[in-house]
Amino acid sequence: MLTPADQAFLDRLRAEGVEVGEAEPRYLEEPRGRWPGRAAGVARPHSTEEVARVLRAAAAERVAVVPYGGGTGLVGGQVKGEGPLPLVLSLERMTALRAIDPQSLVVEAGATLQSVQEAAQTVGRLFPLTIAAQGTAQIGGCLSTNAGGVHVLRYGNARALCLGIEAVLADGTVWNGLTRLRKDNTGYDLRDLLIGAEGTLGVITAAALRLFEPPAVTGLAFFALPSPAAAVALLGLAQGRFAGCVSAFELISRQGLSFLREVGPEVHMPFAEDPDWMVLIELGLPAGMDAEAAFVELFEAAEDLVLDAVIAQSGAQAAQMWELRESLPLANRRIGAISSHDISVPVAAIPDFVAEAGAMLAAMGDFRINCFGHVGDGNLHYNVFPAPGRNRSEYDAQKDAVKTAVHDLVVRGYNGSVSAEHGIGRLKVGDLERYADPAKLMMMRSIKTALDPLGILNPGAVLRG
Amino acid sequence: MLTPADQAFLDRLRAEGVEVGEAEPRYLEEPRGRWPGRAAGVARPHSTEEVARVLRAAAAERVAVVPYGGGTGLVGGQVKGEGPLPLVLSLERMTALRAIDPQSLVVEAGATLQSVQEAAQTVGRLFPLTIAAQGTAQIGGCLSTNAGGVHVLRYGNARALCLGIEAVLADGTVWNGLTRLRKDNTGYDLRDLLIGAEGTLGVITAAALRLFEPPAVTGLAFFALPSPAAAVALLGLAQGRFAGCVSAFELISRQGLSFLREVGPEVHMPFAEDPDWMVLIELGLPAGMDAEAAFVELFEAAEDLVLDAVIAQSGAQAAQMWELRESLPLANRRIGAISSHDISVPVAAIPDFVAEAGAMLAAMGDFRINCFGHVGDGNLHYNVFPAPGRNRSEYDAQKDAVKTAVHDLVVRGYNGSVSAEHGIGRLKVGDLERYADPAKLMMMRSIKTALDPLGILNPGAVLRG
Repeated sequence: MLTPADQAFLDRLRAEGVEVGEAEPRYLEEPRGRWPGRAAGVARPHSTEEVARVLRAAAAERVAVVPYGGGTGLVGGQVKGEGPLPLVLSLERMTALRAIDPQSLVVEAGATLQSVQEAAQTVGRLFPLTIAAQGTAQIGGCLSTNAGGVHVLRYGNARALCLGIEAVLADGTVWNGLTRLRKDNTGYDLRDLLIGAEGTLGVITAAALRLFEPPAVTGLAFFALPSPAAAVALLGLAQGRFAGCVSAFELISRQGLSFLREVGPEVHMPFAEDPDWMVLIELGLPAGMDAEAAFVELFEAAEDLVLDAVIAQSGAQAAQMWELRESLPLANRRIGAISSHDISVPVAAIPDFVAEAGAMLAAMGDFRINCFGHVGDGNLHYNVFPAPGRNRSEYDAQKDAVKTAVHDLVVRGYNGSVSAEHGIGRLKVGDLERYADPAKLMMMRSIKTALDPLGILNPGAVLRG
Repeated sequence: MLTPADQAFLDRLRAEGVEVGEAEPRYLEEPRGRWPGRAAGVARPHSTEEVARVLRAAAAERVAVVPYGGGTGLVGGQVKGEGPLPLVLSLERMTALRAIDPQSLVVEAGATLQSVQEAAQTVGRLFPLTIAAQGTAQIGGCLSTNAGGVHVLRYGNARALCLGIEAVLADGTVWNGLTRLRKDNTGYDLRDLLIGAEGTLGVITAAALRLFEPPAVTGLAFFALPSPAAAVALLGLAQGRFAGCVSAFELISRQGLSFLREVGPEVHMPFAEDPDWMVLIELGLPAGMDAEAAFVELFEAAEDLVLDAVIAQSGAQAAQMWELRESLPLANRRIGAISSHDISVPVAAIPDFVAEAGAMLAAMGDFRINCFGHVGDGNLHYNVFPAPGRNRSEYDAQKDAVKTAVHDLVVRGYNGSVSAEHGIGRLKVGDLERYADPAKLMMMRSIKTALDPLGILNPGAVLRG
């Protein structure tokens, strides 16, 4: 059984030299405002050794610890609203760049993703993880949630970009796994186990991250398309011509453009008339190639698949194009979703899934659907909204049915995932139980018990506490 | 405590419909001939359900099970010579290609790597894992050992090429984790935990593997170089120009060429005079590029780094070039190594490591060193041989000291790995204990106990039994 954190516990931490503050509201809120968190206080260690002290004390007194990064997670992994009062463990004081060379850097968990991108740029390199929240999201959180984003197609998710980690385990033991090697087959892959474990198996305190040579030539374009099937076919053509050099391939629907026109933010629309579908394609090509010519050749090769195209002629135009893509979530929030789904299916199945899900929801009620996202890696944000003029509160009775219908279709109809990139947190614990293979859940529980026998690490996240 | 497998146990398996045969010599030998294995018999299940039956019976009777793939592993993970007599579990009957689409295929564990490469080709795709033993090595073994090879630089190791696995756990439970998704953040990464676990946490019975579009344009060339430092600098130039399109970058030393001249096999030598060092560079470029022109531009950009270059003018020439590279291990075996080291260090550290290791060994005795391999991902095969005219048996007294000196330098001097791609098996259990972070070993043991509490899965491999 866990013990609530109390003033005596906080004082013990202070006596051990750990900075401990009030649990200010910013540590207890999450971006979608669904749950209020509770905590006795916030520890802000300045070093790995201080994190170890916090966890040793928490283990000794059986106090729950909620690791906290930038707080941008969308599934409530960072806020605990129920059960014995926890301690929040914020990594914000640990932001040091410990080392950097052309192939890798080592950074502490509290550094923001953007600061890591900038550090890479100082040595002429690229750290390709790109998510909307990168100015606030911290590397520790990006790794703990295995963050995805728009460049997974080319570079992989956070897990694929990480060479090694340093972590503090549930009993306060420090694991130095900060290898900077591409190839290392010395024992079990504990790095990938802690990455994506959302702070339930250990607290990541630092990471060695891969750096890449930025492509010599880059280009960006919108292609207007008649259908998701055309998008998948165009992706195949692009991969065939530019294998490995397609950096991003993002789907946008007419509904998404309508939302932007309806509630903003105001962005530059690329086509005079909104197409039914469009894709934003980023190419990163070898020296000697011409990005515009490459897009023109792709357009010609695509023949009837493509209705129109706009190629960015400047950095400013490219920024406008990304701005449109990145404004979609804000427009969605302004409209107000009935149910949002961060799903993935095999890429080839996207057209059938979009058609079948649309027909299924049309039979259930009067909805608008904004389906957008990372076609290149099969990850769609499939979000369901009220019909024009109606309020989402009118749909309260249908909300759970919509979510369950979409998730059932994703998993049972298409062998897909109900959390492609956001993780389980506290929001999807029930979904995991509903859809996961029983053997997987059994293994997960065994590993949780083996590595955190007292259950103090982020209890209630991923697995029921 | 484990119980030796006996005839009664084999008869029980037969009664349950499992094919069980004699433990023929081929199941008890390993390529380097260091250890003889022992086994009561060999089970050859035809289905995942039959694998489950074998493990349920083994768990019930506490019999050790040694999973067996193609038998090509170089660290003895597939042969158990000590302790209670085990059952060998060969996946050779499970070779079905269960599904294939343009993005992925699902194949059973006993299929050879080459058959998977060929299946990918039938749909115009590439499965890029490439190792010398691919005609014999099975996919289950490639995953269980997280195989590497010459294309890791571009495509990653076996783990990075696998989307999902099906496995049978120590108690006979079947885990269906055959997702075909690029992005799936639903819970702990058990796939990557079982991959590389060398059959000690579960038996992989099938895998969903990523397929790639083959590059539109490919080219191959040898560049002659004065030093490892020039190789690393040239790699940087190549990555800068062709980011992401350098498919292989393999180092070869004058010593390696001398061995080929001395003991064969006879291969075509690219340069009239053997250079001190050379690299084999494979480019896979977008449509519209010219591989020869790309190599010429790289040669010109490299200026003094490069002494000479030969660009393959035909598929036949390219095959000759790969043949030279792939003949190096055979020449090494004919010379007879005193000590072989499958090591990795950060790429930038390669020149210093090669210089320091060479000086260290020169001070220890009269050796020849053949250092070759995957410069692009930091993985060198650093092998130490007798001086000309001497036999390796003359060095028996120095063998352990050489190994320890090289490994100590790799780990303590360069934060490198003593098993970059071959794994731990039984050969390197002591190395893992010597060099691994204690917290890592503690976690590994906890996980082993959690997932295989009776210790029946490949006991003695990776962790001491």
